[in-house]
Amino acid sequence: MENGSCGTKAETNGNGCHSDLPVCCQSEHDYDERFQEGLEFLKEAVDICINEGIPQGVNRDSKVVEFIDPATMESKFTIPQEGNSTARNKLVTELRDVIKYSVKTAHPHFFNQLFGGMEPYALAGAIATEILNTSQYTFEVAPVFTVMEKAIFSEIRRLIGFKEGDGIFCPGGSVSNMYAINLSRFKAFPDVKAKGMRNLPEMCIATSEKGHYSVRKGAALLGLGMDHVLKVKTDKRGRMIPEELDAVLTAAKRKGMVPILVNATSGSTVQGAYDPLTPIADVCQKHGVWMHVDAAWGGSVLLSDTQRYKMDGVDRADSVTWNLHKMIGAPQQTSLFVTRHENLLKECHSAQAKYLFQQDKFYDVSYDTGDKSIQCGRKVDVLKAWFMWKAKGTKRMGLEVDHVFHCAKYLLEKLALTEDFRLVNTQPESTNVCFWYIPPRLQNQKETSEWWEEVGKVAPEIKKHMVMKGSLLIGYQPEGNHPNFFRVVVSNFGVKLEDMDFIIEEIRRLGHDF
Amino acid sequence: MENGSCGTKAETNGNGCHSDLPVCCQSEHDYDERFQEGLEFLKEAVDICINEGIPQGVNRDSKVVEFIDPATMESKFTIPQEGNSTARNKLVTELRDVIKYSVKTAHPHFFNQLFGGMEPYALAGAIATEILNTSQYTFEVAPVFTVMEKAIFSEIRRLIGFKEGDGIFCPGGSVSNMYAINLSRFKAFPDVKAKGMRNLPEMCIATSEKGHYSVRKGAALLGLGMDHVLKVKTDKRGRMIPEELDAVLTAAKRKGMVPILVNATSGSTVQGAYDPLTPIADVCQKHGVWMHVDAAWGGSVLLSDTQRYKMDGVDRADSVTWNLHKMIGAPQQTSLFVTRHENLLKECHSAQAKYLFQQDKFYDVSYDTGDKSIQCGRKVDVLKAWFMWKAKGTKRMGLEVDHVFHCAKYLLEKLALTEDFRLVNTQPESTNVCFWYIPPRLQNQKETSEWWEEVGKVAPEIKKHMVMKGSLLIGYQPEGNHPNFFRVVVSNFGVKLEDMDFIIEEIRRLGHDF
Repeated sequence: MENGSCGTKAETNGNGCHSDLPVCCQSEHDYDERFQEGLEFLKEAVDICINEGIPQGVNRDSKVVEFIDPATMESKFTIPQEGNSTARNKLVTELRDVIKYSVKTAHPHFFNQLFGGMEPYALAGAIATEILNTSQYTFEVAPVFTVMEKAIFSEIRRLIGFKEGDGIFCPGGSVSNMYAINLSRFKAFPDVKAKGMRNLPEMCIATSEKGHYSVRKGAALLGLGMDHVLKVKTDKRGRMIPEELDAVLTAAKRKGMVPILVNATSGSTVQGAYDPLTPIADVCQKHGVWMHVDAAWGGSVLLSDTQRYKMDGVDRADSVTWNLHKMIGAPQQTSLFVTRHENLLKECHSAQAKYLFQQDKFYDVSYDTGDKSIQCGRKVDVLKAWFMWKAKGTKRMGLEVDHVFHCAKYLLEKLALTEDFRLVNTQPESTNVCFWYIPPRLQNQKETSEWWEEVGKVAPEIKKHMVMKGSLLIGYQPEGNHPNFFRVVVSNFGVKLEDMDFIIEEIRRLGHDF
Repeated sequence: MENGSCGTKAETNGNGCHSDLPVCCQSEHDYDERFQEGLEFLKEAVDICINEGIPQGVNRDSKVVEFIDPATMESKFTIPQEGNSTARNKLVTELRDVIKYSVKTAHPHFFNQLFGGMEPYALAGAIATEILNTSQYTFEVAPVFTVMEKAIFSEIRRLIGFKEGDGIFCPGGSVSNMYAINLSRFKAFPDVKAKGMRNLPEMCIATSEKGHYSVRKGAALLGLGMDHVLKVKTDKRGRMIPEELDAVLTAAKRKGMVPILVNATSGSTVQGAYDPLTPIADVCQKHGVWMHVDAAWGGSVLLSDTQRYKMDGVDRADSVTWNLHKMIGAPQQTSLFVTRHENLLKECHSAQAKYLFQQDKFYDVSYDTGDKSIQCGRKVDVLKAWFMWKAKGTKRMGLEVDHVFHCAKYLLEKLALTEDFRLVNTQPESTNVCFWYIPPRLQNQKETSEWWEEVGKVAPEIKKHMVMKGSLLIGYQPEGNHPNFFRVVVSNFGVKLEDMDFIIEEIRRLGHDF
């Protein structure tokens, strides 16, 4: 600060700024005015978001997407040369364009991802969070959110069946899964925190061949290496075969490797498979390996009386990932990491920064949760979960889960009766409905490998027309030997059976002539 | 879905639900009504946030904090037994309590953290982001935000001086720093991604003794181990000594270690020191080590014509962390990771998930940025930066940076003239102003070690009274041989010189009798 800063003591003492000071010192005088201008923009923007954005986002008669190609989009949204400012009225126009050209993920015809819909109570919590703008690391600056996090995780543990334990909100399910890997490694080799992996035995992780790719990303980041993620075979519905897991772990040990974690999946990404947790827990117990359940997608069945049996055995896990922004509609990102081990998050992650986690504070510093995280500043995610939970209660949320399962089942059964659709899996366990559409020109033909190759071109082509028309959004992908197929994910509890009918009709309309 | 789901084909076909179906099938009929109810709550909540929360948050005559102890706070915010729902009017009351008991981080008397203030344009972007609720991984679901991220990082690279490169928003500065560690390790040993660290040489990282603790957390997470973070000595103003860095790297190499990264700090956490980047770049070049600049706190000087010289040499770095939620007021979290290496993020982090990053999409898939991240779903952070940047331009933001430096300088010089305050550092480089308050009973005494011990008790005691009164929030901590001292961080460009005066007066009022 010794040079380059404006003003000097003599100039600024007493009455503050003088009129001959550089512009930065002048800025006090018009700060209030500029802040008011900003607030006016904020209010106008919020009004536009609520009264134009939400209706555009959820109404069936608006488009799911207004597609323009990336290069054109780039030319629409630009930063002025040298970062000059833009007039207020142009910003308002731009906000309307942001809304117009953004994909309407809350639209009842959006089935493209494992999230979707709009939960107004959680959204209110998200907006309040932005305005209160704090960091979740200490009770000192996040007193309300600290006690809320504690209360929410207590309810979450009850749902999982953990008698004790700990939990933390993470920036997404992938990071939550990485927490599991790190904790399992630390539990097996506490020295790793200080000394690193170099002199430790070769470690490995087992997950099903349908498990999420974040386990591989995590293995790379944590220095284990992607090759040390061992894939376990699945049955025809995509569920990990416990006997195969046993064989994989046994073989790994024979090679001198130490399996540190088994990643079981509750709701696989593509087909929604639920790995059988109880027999997997038995195998983990036999081998003394940390059992993690990646229920990022499928965890919401824990709320449903009729669906939660799919996660029977989860109470035997060491840790669980569950994204509340999937299926039950909290905004991105509301991702839980829960473990049965009470002090492990802190033991594994703490770095005891003295400037933040002072031990001589006048309140009970065990409420400061920041050192349990790999982050320092941590965005507040709990208020979204809080208002949703309190407004609806566990029971209503469970009924909403039942509803999306009901819609998915309706779609599945309707597709099963058609001639021009072919199900990939006739017994999906979650609300992922995977199918091929067979356009007229490919119907009633011999199903050779060439034929299947042609079928695999259908989804990308229909997708293109779907996006251009903006009427519907569904993802597609190949998997294993299966060529490209559509994956409808029913994740928005605002959908109705008529939306399921619409999927079928619209794909026919779009694909009929292909 | 084969059992446990409600309804059957026969019941649900045709007209949809029948009146004798389980309640989950009934829910369609009242969904619209419940959604409207939820929207009404949302609108009321937003109104309260904007028209009550913001004034309470920024007005000088409201309290910075309304403290109640953790246990009492817990009793105020509870989840009903078994997760039952709560009446709407109670939720509204609860929202008001959330606002009341939350710390007012935008208040001009909040100096407790490296963030603070309220930037209305960025806040508008944050709220629009919540309503549009998408994930940043593909152009397909985040078309607007994808091109915005590209444009913002182009401007950021211009400010840093990188001619080419790449960048990504991360969930906080700690994670951004971990990206740097991971990229540096991958650059040195590309095999680490697949094979892990086990057969690689012993690696180490160098950072100053005043560097942020996230480097140690990152070393632990990435399997390097905290012991492999080597501390480099600093000068009396807290800046890394380049000759010491050279010596540390030379010694590490002599021991057979491979230094993979040097973490230089632009704006240290406690005292705001800027490491000298040009000589550090020379040392990094000499040793062939990745140079990362952790400018999480201090990076905003890049916007200021008068302050940016403190980061001269940053254009020679391999990567930079910069939090826009610090000093320039974007909401939590708006954290940038930038690198000069164009394809390295993708090479290092990609896992090529076929269900998400289909290569046969009809648009240019190089716009899908998700595989550059360690996350899968990634919260949209760019819209906050976008509106702020466009409303004010680089120039106005730079003047706001000048303003907080001006206020900090004013405070510093005023404190230097007092008898009852003692500066820890008379020449701080950022807006961290660190000092002891010497209450009357300790003034004019021999400064023995016992005396200093007593001085170290002053800050926690004053802090307690400060929090109870709710008039001011300032952090404190010990550092090295220094007992507890106050750290005022001027990070809110809405503060005025009168607020600097208030700090001095209020600490005297609170501490006079101690």
